[in-house]
Amino acid sequence: MNSKIPVTVLGATGVVGQRFVRRLASHPLFKIQYLAASERSSGKRYFEACAWRLEGEPYGGFGPRVMVPGEPDQAFSPVVFSALDSGPASELEPQFAKAGALVFSNASAFRMAREVPLLIPEVNPEHLGLIELQRRHHGWKGAILCNPNCTATVLAMALAPLEKTFGIEAVMMTSMQAVSGAGYPGVASLDILGNVVPFIRNEEEKVEEEIPKLLGLLGPEGIELAKLGVSALCHRVPVLEGHTEAVSVKLKGSPTPDQVREAMRSWRPEPQALNLPSAPAVPIHLHLTEDRPQVRRDVEVDGGMSVHVGRVRACPLFGIKFSLLGHNTERGAAGGSILNAELAHAKGLLG
Amino acid sequence: MNSKIPVTVLGATGVVGQRFVRRLASHPLFKIQYLAASERSSGKRYFEACAWRLEGEPYGGFGPRVMVPGEPDQAFSPVVFSALDSGPASELEPQFAKAGALVFSNASAFRMAREVPLLIPEVNPEHLGLIELQRRHHGWKGAILCNPNCTATVLAMALAPLEKTFGIEAVMMTSMQAVSGAGYPGVASLDILGNVVPFIRNEEEKVEEEIPKLLGLLGPEGIELAKLGVSALCHRVPVLEGHTEAVSVKLKGSPTPDQVREAMRSWRPEPQALNLPSAPAVPIHLHLTEDRPQVRRDVEVDGGMSVHVGRVRACPLFGIKFSLLGHNTERGAAGGSILNAELAHAKGLLG
Amino acid sequence: MNSKIPVTVLGATGVVGQRFVRRLASHPLFKIQYLAASERSSGKRYFEACAWRLEGEPYGGFGPRVMVPGEPDQAFSPVVFSALDSGPASELEPQFAKAGALVFSNASAFRMAREVPLLIPEVNPEHLGLIELQRRHHGWKGAILCNPNCTATVLAMALAPLEKTFGIEAVMMTSMQAVSGAGYPGVASLDILGNVVPFIRNEEEKVEEEIPKLLGLLGPEGIELAKLGVSALCHRVPVLEGHTEAVSVKLKGSPTPDQVREAMRSWRPEPQALNLPSAPAVPIHLHLTEDRPQVRRDVEVDGGMSVHVGRVRACPLFGIKFSLLGHNTERGAAGGSILNAELAHAKGLLG
Amino acid sequence: MNSKIPVTVLGATGVVGQRFVRRLASHPLFKIQYLAASERSSGKRYFEACAWRLEGEPYGGFGPRVMVPGEPDQAFSPVVFSALDSGPASELEPQFAKAGALVFSNASAFRMAREVPLLIPEVNPEHLGLIELQRRHHGWKGAILCNPNCTATVLAMALAPLEKTFGIEAVMMTSMQAVSGAGYPGVASLDILGNVVPFIRNEEEKVEEEIPKLLGLLGPEGIELAKLGVSALCHRVPVLEGHTEAVSVKLKGSPTPDQVREAMRSWRPEPQALNLPSAPAVPIHLHLTEDRPQVRRDVEVDGGMSVHVGRVRACPLFGIKFSLLGHNTERGAAGGSILNAELAHAKGLLG
Repeated sequence: MNSKIPVTVLGATGVVGQRFVRRLASHPLFKIQYLAASERSSGKRYFEACAWRLEGEPYGGFGPRVMVPGEPDQAFSPVVFSALDSGPASELEPQFAKAGALVFSNASAFRMAREVPLLIPEVNPEHLGLIELQRRHHGWKGAILCNPNCTATVLAMALAPLEKTFGIEAVMMTSMQAVSGAGYPGVASLDILGNVVPFIRNEEEKVEEEIPKLLGLLGPEGIELAKLGVSALCHRVPVLEGHTEAVSVKLKGSPTPDQVREAMRSWRPEPQALNLPSAPAVPIHLHLTEDRPQVRRDVEVDGGMSVHVGRVRACPLFGIKFSLLGHNTERGAAGGSILNAELAHAKGLLG
Repeated sequence: MNSKIPVTVLGATGVVGQRFVRRLASHPLFKIQYLAASERSSGKRYFEACAWRLEGEPYGGFGPRVMVPGEPDQAFSPVVFSALDSGPASELEPQFAKAGALVFSNASAFRMAREVPLLIPEVNPEHLGLIELQRRHHGWKGAILCNPNCTATVLAMALAPLEKTFGIEAVMMTSMQAVSGAGYPGVASLDILGNVVPFIRNEEEKVEEEIPKLLGLLGPEGIELAKLGVSALCHRVPVLEGHTEAVSVKLKGSPTPDQVREAMRSWRPEPQALNLPSAPAVPIHLHLTEDRPQVRRDVEVDGGMSVHVGRVRACPLFGIKFSLLGHNTERGAAGGSILNAELAHAKGLLG
Repeated sequence: MNSKIPVTVLGATGVVGQRFVRRLASHPLFKIQYLAASERSSGKRYFEACAWRLEGEPYGGFGPRVMVPGEPDQAFSPVVFSALDSGPASELEPQFAKAGALVFSNASAFRMAREVPLLIPEVNPEHLGLIELQRRHHGWKGAILCNPNCTATVLAMALAPLEKTFGIEAVMMTSMQAVSGAGYPGVASLDILGNVVPFIRNEEEKVEEEIPKLLGLLGPEGIELAKLGVSALCHRVPVLEGHTEAVSVKLKGSPTPDQVREAMRSWRPEPQALNLPSAPAVPIHLHLTEDRPQVRRDVEVDGGMSVHVGRVRACPLFGIKFSLLGHNTERGAAGGSILNAELAHAKGLLG
Repeated sequence: MNSKIPVTVLGATGVVGQRFVRRLASHPLFKIQYLAASERSSGKRYFEACAWRLEGEPYGGFGPRVMVPGEPDQAFSPVVFSALDSGPASELEPQFAKAGALVFSNASAFRMAREVPLLIPEVNPEHLGLIELQRRHHGWKGAILCNPNCTATVLAMALAPLEKTFGIEAVMMTSMQAVSGAGYPGVASLDILGNVVPFIRNEEEKVEEEIPKLLGLLGPEGIELAKLGVSALCHRVPVLEGHTEAVSVKLKGSPTPDQVREAMRSWRPEPQALNLPSAPAVPIHLHLTEDRPQVRRDVEVDGGMSVHVGRVRACPLFGIKFSLLGHNTERGAAGGSILNAELAHAKGLLG
């Protein structure tokens, strides 16, 4: 226990911050040193600063912990997990990186920065190498490592084995997204009960720009974007956790649905080979039942760290279409960041 | 009143049947002569045979009406509206057509038959001409006229002005469909509360085969299918009434979003020119607010007879994408059939 | 039209304020003179200050109207409808009353004040007489008239004919309340999707203290509280509009369910006798079907101005129990206030 | 493992049957010998006969098991768990009892029979003694033991320590019940989305007659019914699992809320003393947060075997009111039956 690496959670009171705390409360490599919060909450005990919204032990057992201001001189740990909103993130995360921390961030602030890795361990573990460029560029001892937008994360997980096996020319993706993606209080019940909202601010843009970076190759000047077309059509639906995505994909060589299923089934990426603590045994669950995956029934499998694919079938336009499901606040947020840190640890980047 | 045309409703007890009755109870051209039902219900009064599930006057005022068997010798009217399931429809509808009735059918049984018009008055009023072929073919005095699948109907309404103005090469459509589309009792609450189900039996196939017929041209041998590619990805969501569709469309000449909006806005098809009683003044409502149309807030406008388009924007893959909404059990079922009958009346086909 | 009475709406941007505007836009007695708002919104046009959340014509046609500050010197009308929160209401409503306006208020600030009528025209029209006391007490030319809490309003409507016919000893009421009662954004979707929340702040207290005033008699010193026991147990459920209440009531003389139904059915209170414009023809709809009333199916009848009673049956403990339903933001808010103003007009209090 | 007691599950394909299978698949005392089904399913493999609707291993690992007819000569085990509907139960359960099995039944068929125990191990373990009377009465070697209606079970759990500590005079209970209580397909989504249904057939009657038996004392002639008044008002709400109950209770000696909380907190009934495998460590979780328990957030604690009480407060009419929550298909069905069997085992009744 004493040899665990101390970590700080920035933005610990929110929907994603609480998931960080719950996962880190029993993590084999990391232990929580600081829970940091905005000025309004710092000085309060964690249980006073927010209402716990998850199942399991309230506040992950950290209820009495006094929260500290989210600044490096009061909350420094060698590893920092950030659940901050984009505004505060753009100010505070560089301060922690400058102070020497590896900052694993959920925020969108630096995702598309040339020198910042946009990391999914199953998809692009070699992007870790971008840290060198980042440190040279800024003169930092630490670094910022981002995980992608939740919708893009889920999509990239399903596309990665297809990119590797066949090559992707184009992907059209329509999402049906859970309300938890908007944080708390987030989506008003008056807006979503019995409704579908065909708009989530900036979401389509994020997916369309992040996917080419996620599937790109590390070059000397940064990531060379993958050359595929991406179109996203994003919706909010009355679902609590989990994003459903309807995907049509144009692959090189026009593989059959069976070949696509086989490429997904046989995919064994690095986190599974390295046996990282938060990596699911099988990154993509392939469903053969005609009406699965279903978000309410499947999304919590493997603690939300795997994604689900079903209904792989011929698309009259693109060749292949399938149904995709993943957990937006676990794989697409807290769990994803922690898996990134585990990869960095396995690669010797945490000292 | 005495000069109104007497009509029969087949399958009057179901979700769509009740909407037929409600619309016909106060229709300026038609009056209900017979409410027909399966063996189990015939002989019962309408209010005994089913629970009324709509707003407004219970049973449309026809609660005490005794239901008759759905056979031509006991339920013949010159106009028949059929809300039958596909099985009974394939048996009974031809009997009524043979007996001389014009049968306006919601069932899928004959939609793709070469000699049967698949009719949306705004989209393909000239397909009415197919009746001649049908009568010659079968030696009938009557005829069967189908309205399309509800999801296809809504899509065709938005595509029609684009086909006419630009020409369509391909359309990708992901639907988020209401539970009412499955009838009553239909979708179990245990299957859909807090869930998205990425499968509706035969729905994708229907959309993909009906759209080319709907947009096709009447030729001497029947309908020449329109030459466009169609791919549909269909989902059930926890919404009561109304199908939301996310549409990407590849148009000839690569028009801008503004040009697409203008084509939709300026569209004035025949039912509006003829001022048919059930035709909405504006067939497509164009929304400019960034988060509309929304099914719960918009679907009941115009009694569900118009469709709604919003978020017309550039698609990185197909050129144009937009959000579409329509009422599945009104425009896509009962209201659509009645509008078909009104068109037939305006064209002098009802004697 | 020119002879209509000009009115001001305070708090016009909120959930209840919009319902005021929609009702007043076509009211036979009143016309909107001012839409007033907080500092943040005044000076903006109505459509800039809020998103319209109701069906029907957006902003009731008042979208371009410039909003004014909610103060008597800038927004005075002889009749003022207040949809303010309790804090601003306690400050601003007396200023308008002092300036000579009759203020019809939805806020809870003054409901229990000794000199303020808590008015439901069907239940206690004679409480209007309290205005004299109020004017003497404050030296005002105007007055404040409150409508009760929405849950209490619905309950009082059902209790009134029972109090009159039999006399009530005790009432136990468990509510299942719509999210609209909390305003917008109000209840977070993360809190209510698939959930029941057994707590609404201050709601039980309001019902328990308002019912005895509502059913009380006007005396020289104010209202003599009715001598009945009231216990309320309040819940939030995932419903948009309409409060369902499960009621057990102990009546004097132990009437049968048939006698209770008859008392409700034959009730013809003053607004119906006076034929007030917003009064429903029948104040209580009695349902005989075993599973009605149901909030989604029944609550919009009569524009939400009537209440619904069903399942009147024997209670092993109190003698009678029944199911009750009413519209919280119409009868329980905007519609209720306007009906109060109509009663005041009919009684000659509006000059 | 070989020493585990073989059991039969009757009605294994339904909502409750599947929960039996999931619990028994890893039970320390019992092992599944037969999965029995109606004629329609017998001969099929379990995975062919139904769709698995629960989380965790599909079919509890029994997917390939061939189902047998639910008759003693083909499906006899010394312990039988019955998830049958009332009709088949009334026919088949006595046959198994006659053949020598202890039948632990969820059906309502025999609950109120004079010689049949209506058993909740925490509430009335001594009612097991009724088996003697039953065996004498019928000349059976086996016996039928019922668990109560799910709503009554949850209520009885909260009432038991109050009856023991203070004595109960009257209880008024309004329920807000999950759709799973109606089985599958059960409640149609068209009936419950955005709705509250104030009626569940026979539910109020069951609660009102079962509670006095549950809290009664074992006498020589059977159970002497407890002398308390019970009134139930039952509703269906759009919730998946878990019944919320609003309870007002009149206790002897008028204890304070603190005393009531203490009686619940200090309650240590027999299953906890005996450490039965399915008994939760704490039978009643007392919530102190003002807005808990909440069904979606609390109902799955302890595998659904404990109940939750919150908001214990003064009731102006009955003295005490509180909010109550329990799992209808676990504690109120499958888990409850299995706990009954564990109690019977601990008492030496399973040989």
